[in-house]
Amino acid sequence: MKEPSACGKRCASRFEQFVQPCLAELLGSALFLFIGCLSVIENGTDTGLLQPALVHGLGTGIMTTIFGNISGGYFNPAVSLLATVTGGLHLVMLIPYWISQLCGALIGAALAKVVSPEEKFWNASGAAFVTVQDEGQVVGALVAEIILTALLALVVCMTAINEMHSPLVPYTVGLSVTVCTLAGGAVSGACMNPARAFGPAVMANHWDFHWIYWLGPILASLIVGLLIRLFTGDGKTCLILKR
Amino acid sequence: MKEPSACGKRCASRFEQFVQPCLAELLGSALFLFIGCLSVIENGTDTGLLQPALVHGLGTGIMTTIFGNISGGYFNPAVSLLATVTGGLHLVMLIPYWISQLCGALIGAALAKVVSPEEKFWNASGAAFVTVQDEGQVVGALVAEIILTALLALVVCMTAINEMHSPLVPYTVGLSVTVCTLAGGAVSGACMNPARAFGPAVMANHWDFHWIYWLGPILASLIVGLLIRLFTGDGKTCLILKR
Amino acid sequence: MKEPSACGKRCASRFEQFVQPCLAELLGSALFLFIGCLSVIENGTDTGLLQPALVHGLGTGIMTTIFGNISGGYFNPAVSLLATVTGGLHLVMLIPYWISQLCGALIGAALAKVVSPEEKFWNASGAAFVTVQDEGQVVGALVAEIILTALLALVVCMTAINEMHSPLVPYTVGLSVTVCTLAGGAVSGACMNPARAFGPAVMANHWDFHWIYWLGPILASLIVGLLIRLFTGDGKTCLILKR
Amino acid sequence: MKEPSACGKRCASRFEQFVQPCLAELLGSALFLFIGCLSVIENGTDTGLLQPALVHGLGTGIMTTIFGNISGGYFNPAVSLLATVTGGLHLVMLIPYWISQLCGALIGAALAKVVSPEEKFWNASGAAFVTVQDEGQVVGALVAEIILTALLALVVCMTAINEMHSPLVPYTVGLSVTVCTLAGGAVSGACMNPARAFGPAVMANHWDFHWIYWLGPILASLIVGLLIRLFTGDGKTCLILKR
Repeated sequence: MKEPSACGKRCASRFEQFVQPCLAELLGSALFLFIGCLSVIENGTDTGLLQPALVHGLGTGIMTTIFGNISGGYFNPAVSLLATVTGGLHLVMLIPYWISQLCGALIGAALAKVVSPEEKFWNASGAAFVTVQDEGQVVGALVAEIILTALLALVVCMTAINEMHSPLVPYTVGLSVTVCTLAGGAVSGACMNPARAFGPAVMANHWDFHWIYWLGPILASLIVGLLIRLFTGDGKTCLILKR
Repeated sequence: MKEPSACGKRCASRFEQFVQPCLAELLGSALFLFIGCLSVIENGTDTGLLQPALVHGLGTGIMTTIFGNISGGYFNPAVSLLATVTGGLHLVMLIPYWISQLCGALIGAALAKVVSPEEKFWNASGAAFVTVQDEGQVVGALVAEIILTALLALVVCMTAINEMHSPLVPYTVGLSVTVCTLAGGAVSGACMNPARAFGPAVMANHWDFHWIYWLGPILASLIVGLLIRLFTGDGKTCLILKR
Repeated sequence: MKEPSACGKRCASRFEQFVQPCLAELLGSALFLFIGCLSVIENGTDTGLLQPALVHGLGTGIMTTIFGNISGGYFNPAVSLLATVTGGLHLVMLIPYWISQLCGALIGAALAKVVSPEEKFWNASGAAFVTVQDEGQVVGALVAEIILTALLALVVCMTAINEMHSPLVPYTVGLSVTVCTLAGGAVSGACMNPARAFGPAVMANHWDFHWIYWLGPILASLIVGLLIRLFTGDGKTCLILKR
Repeated sequence: MKEPSACGKRCASRFEQFVQPCLAELLGSALFLFIGCLSVIENGTDTGLLQPALVHGLGTGIMTTIFGNISGGYFNPAVSLLATVTGGLHLVMLIPYWISQLCGALIGAALAKVVSPEEKFWNASGAAFVTVQDEGQVVGALVAEIILTALLALVVCMTAINEMHSPLVPYTVGLSVTVCTLAGGAVSGACMNPARAFGPAVMANHWDFHWIYWLGPILASLIVGLLIRLFTGDGKTCLILKR
């Protein structure tokens, strides 16, 4: 199917600026959720958090490497919000990105359900976040989600949005996901990504304490983003500690 | 043995363009299969999929680093097919590459058999893929192989064939093998490579559901390759989301 | 809050040269201690030292990547001392850095305590170093801390202070932390960082053999730093084996 | 101690060309053996070969990163021999390098013995290679050592000696050590380095089948080196498959 040349420059440009990035976020989110959910559903008992931590972290690094130039490679509504607040993403794209990411998450989680044996799927609650089981854990989990997402947000700001010129940038972001998962996985699940929480929650219809994984990451992104905006003052989007 | 200068330019050029790449694919496939099969045959019970996932992934990264400039560093019939479809490999080289890869796979799997204690070799079915045991698993395994190979194919397209200029490209490809193995290893074995399946299948004479590891990867490569060709339209080999 | 332009150039420069680096050391140390302590408090029994080794090592790599240009990215009183001795850090900044690092360590360890279930926190003694239990282990632990910190100090000198131009420098430093933790974690805890020891020691009020984690790292930094100074002779800060 | 200027240019140059590289090989080998032996002596039962594989591999990458410009960063008599055969190291330096590497290995293994609890040290035979226990394993172990060292030798040739310009070269070499250890550790120990075998063998006075770890690696280095020399023909030191 050729790009119809009659469509003209404006049409092609709209495709490149709008449709293409949304498709990249959708496809990337679907693949990220597929491998991420499988790494939890099929996780053995002998390797602790290593398998999910490596899959989510390296998966983030790989997906951001290949889609970064097209859409920024967020696959995460909270990080997209941060990028909007700090000027890395145009406001008009935020809602389309969120929709793409959540749709991608649904597709990825659904495909993970399709290929998993039913018993394993339900034992793992379909990779939905089940770390928080009672009210007593809520405060700790919420604080952990906020701090861990703030760490991730800081890394994204200081490397990707700040345009550090290094081929390692996608992996610095990815490894911060690995590190946060290993550190906080047993406290809150170390989600840091509402889309990652949403997809499997729909598939397993598991909604207990689901709000933590929206409130925590979004709050952290807003805090980090506003701090950066406040400290930089004028038009140029710099970072909190860099004038 | 000196390169005979009487042979002239044409002969030397043929050696460089034809014999040398095939030898590289053969040698690389043999070494890749040797360490890959050993990592499964000698795998302990305490580290889940970590040992095979790291060996196959980092092994891919290392082999592609050292042979990439000579042959492209595929070591995988499905990825070679993808490269042919997307214009990264000349059609006339496809069959020689396939033969080199399958011969290399046989040599590597045979050497792994030679150095392994017989009991361990047969306990692991010689590192042949035995994840699928009954008909009920076939659909899930086939879908998993298709999606995981599509992820790998997408990474290869967006980095190596698209000539992303970064020393990390071989490791981005390699780590996508690691990630896919950790995510899908318990579902389908996460083969993504017919040659990897073929070598140990011959050595252990294990052919149950062997067709999955040819059909899945080749289908995925064709789908990704054709999508890219369709969306790009004319001569220049671009990528699906890049006009 | 705009940078008040009335303050003038001197004020802004003082902010950049003094306040900003100290804030970076404080924030970085707090985040490093938070994830580091959690990785020990929440460590499972099946993965040995892998979880803490990866979190401390990759965490060092990530934090040094994002704060390196602002403060040098030390987060470690012993390494700051080394940098002062070898000329990488101005003497007047040493005490402010130490205070920032120790305050950050307290904040990070306190936050880790807040989010951890009480039982797990006390089982792990709040991630304080408890490897040395009796007098018989003291010599081995002290020697191990000295050698491991010397290795880390040598890596810092040869890469960061020596201004090796490679995006991998922060990860070479970080991976040396991983390697030392895996090698020496069971002997001495492989602390190599008085701030890392201090934070959780306060939170768990655990001070047995605490001095080892100050004496060992500081001694190692002094030895490596002086060797480098002696061998280089004059003003230019070169390395021990490089004239 | 100032470099005495009276000594003149010749003396300084001799220091730089002869003493300095030997000191680097000695120091690097000592640190590599120290962490390597400790990673085996203190290895838990839950993480299989991961701890030694990561420490030896990443340790190689780190040491080669920091000493590569001074001495080449071999720390391995077999790899030094390969470099001599392929023209990467002057013949006159080979014996001094070997002596430095073996002395360093002794120092490192001795220090590992000093800091280890006696029981753990003897349980692990001081990290000497004890994988081969009876005559029946000899052939498999020898073949494995030859193939694994050949893989390592090929990686060294194609990256370091071939002067591939990438900051990843030391880690490509290091990760090939990790991969070979994970794949072949249970077959032969995956030593690939006579110095690594020699140091702990002296400390634990364990010499059973010790010759395998000299014959295998040296044979592999000679084979790979000669193949390269034969195929390249004239003065320029190219690689086997590169004309």
